[in-house]
Amino acid sequence: MILLDGKLTSEKIKEEIKIQVQEIVKYGGRPPHLAAVLVGNDGASLTYVGSKVRSCEKVGFKSTLIHLDENISEEELISEINKLNDNKKIDGYIVQLPLPKHINEEKILMMVNPEKDVDGFHPFNFGKMAQNMDSFIPATPYGIIELIDRYGIETEGKNTVVIGRSNIVGRPISILMSNKSKPGNSTVTLVHSRTPNISSFTKKADIVIVALGIPNFLKSDMIKKDSVVIDVGITRVEDKTKVRGYKIVGDVDFKSVKNKVSHITPVPGGVGPMTIAMLLKNTLKARKK
Amino acid sequence: MILLDGKLTSEKIKEEIKIQVQEIVKYGGRPPHLAAVLVGNDGASLTYVGSKVRSCEKVGFKSTLIHLDENISEEELISEINKLNDNKKIDGYIVQLPLPKHINEEKILMMVNPEKDVDGFHPFNFGKMAQNMDSFIPATPYGIIELIDRYGIETEGKNTVVIGRSNIVGRPISILMSNKSKPGNSTVTLVHSRTPNISSFTKKADIVIVALGIPNFLKSDMIKKDSVVIDVGITRVEDKTKVRGYKIVGDVDFKSVKNKVSHITPVPGGVGPMTIAMLLKNTLKARKK
Repeated sequence: MILLDGKLTSEKIKEEIKIQVQEIVKYGGRPPHLAAVLVGNDGASLTYVGSKVRSCEKVGFKSTLIHLDENISEEELISEINKLNDNKKIDGYIVQLPLPKHINEEKILMMVNPEKDVDGFHPFNFGKMAQNMDSFIPATPYGIIELIDRYGIETEGKNTVVIGRSNIVGRPISILMSNKSKPGNSTVTLVHSRTPNISSFTKKADIVIVALGIPNFLKSDMIKKDSVVIDVGITRVEDKTKVRGYKIVGDVDFKSVKNKVSHITPVPGGVGPMTIAMLLKNTLKARKK
Repeated sequence: MILLDGKLTSEKIKEEIKIQVQEIVKYGGRPPHLAAVLVGNDGASLTYVGSKVRSCEKVGFKSTLIHLDENISEEELISEINKLNDNKKIDGYIVQLPLPKHINEEKILMMVNPEKDVDGFHPFNFGKMAQNMDSFIPATPYGIIELIDRYGIETEGKNTVVIGRSNIVGRPISILMSNKSKPGNSTVTLVHSRTPNISSFTKKADIVIVALGIPNFLKSDMIKKDSVVIDVGITRVEDKTKVRGYKIVGDVDFKSVKNKVSHITPVPGGVGPMTIAMLLKNTLKARKK
């Protein structure tokens, strides 16, 4: 069994990005600049955004955190978005989700200038991705593709099952894995909450990608021997032995599944760290444009 | 076996559209106006565009055919596109594909104002569709969904196999059939040229949608008894007994398959006529916006 080490791989990618930033700066250029918009004080969101900002520093990016009050009006938020769209010194930015309930998330994401949309959530980028055109690919599916690529896992002609059809992970990775590309060219089945017998699909899969948000969902009796298992789950589960009071649990029952697979991502340390690395990669791309 | 009669269904839809147009006109409104851009004199393209224009007349739309010389430069074509984008009396328009080789098709389609993109080919509309937002859905997959809906075929929880991953049919119908919607909510597998054993998937499918462009590809031994088969193929095959010199052949070996299925679309008279009806429906939608 080979562990797909997202932590190690993401460190390598960050190192590569750092070198490219040094090149830009060496020739008198401005380093890439990522901004993050955070509304309110959700614990997980604060952690994610903090981690993104720290990663920027590591690779030599400039970063700006725009932390707004959770009672901000939609109108005021839109005005902040417009400022970011107009600011020529900011290459890309993200709006950390979820937004407070009184704000229309879809409307806000549509306001993001697609050329600065390093999260790849704008329909224009999403459509380009689905049509196999160059675009910003959402960071999590992009991270999965990169991990598969760097570990040399063959995907062409393989039977891939994606569990979960979210706009952030399941839908885009199902498209990317079946696009005419490398990695890609695999036969993808997208299963979801309305699929009656998920294991009838996963049992035949060469590659299983789980993005459901249900801890330990995928058991060893649901998969084929020597398959590749990618775990996108990051549910916080109470754990009083931890200083934080919780642990991060994936969608895969790692203990039993790991003995049956050829490759598997751990949680934490698998897809998670790859996501941030790919966000940085998208920002570098935005800077180069 | 129930024949999914696209000709009859499309006539009904056109009748419904006609009534809505009469309503608009009755209250002093301008009827919907569809324009079609045709470059060159490709035989099939002339037929398709001609058919679209005639359908417009039938439902009371205004239509304009912009027939351009096949040697038109990309720049001149873009200028025509911009005129259409600016013309407030045109609600929607299509650019008939394929375009001559010296013109960058992708570039031209990106120039179409998404609000007039009644073909739904612009990445912005494509992305909205993939994210399950309101958009213009490409006419052929939209026609398939409508046909399934009007015949009351249950799709939720069903095993659907789509053959072919084109941007025009396979990819979008694979997304629509698995979106959280009705029809939709089915478990979709997208198979394509790099899938080693297509029949291993089709044999287990409740619904098979074939959009490959290979005449008589789907044989009866490749499908399950009582499945639903949708044939999107429209290949022209030489036939000297016909006045035109050719006949239209689908991707399904209709003669043998028809005896095994619960529902099937004929070719011609299945998905083809639905496509034009849905183009009209999109144009009406553009007019109402």
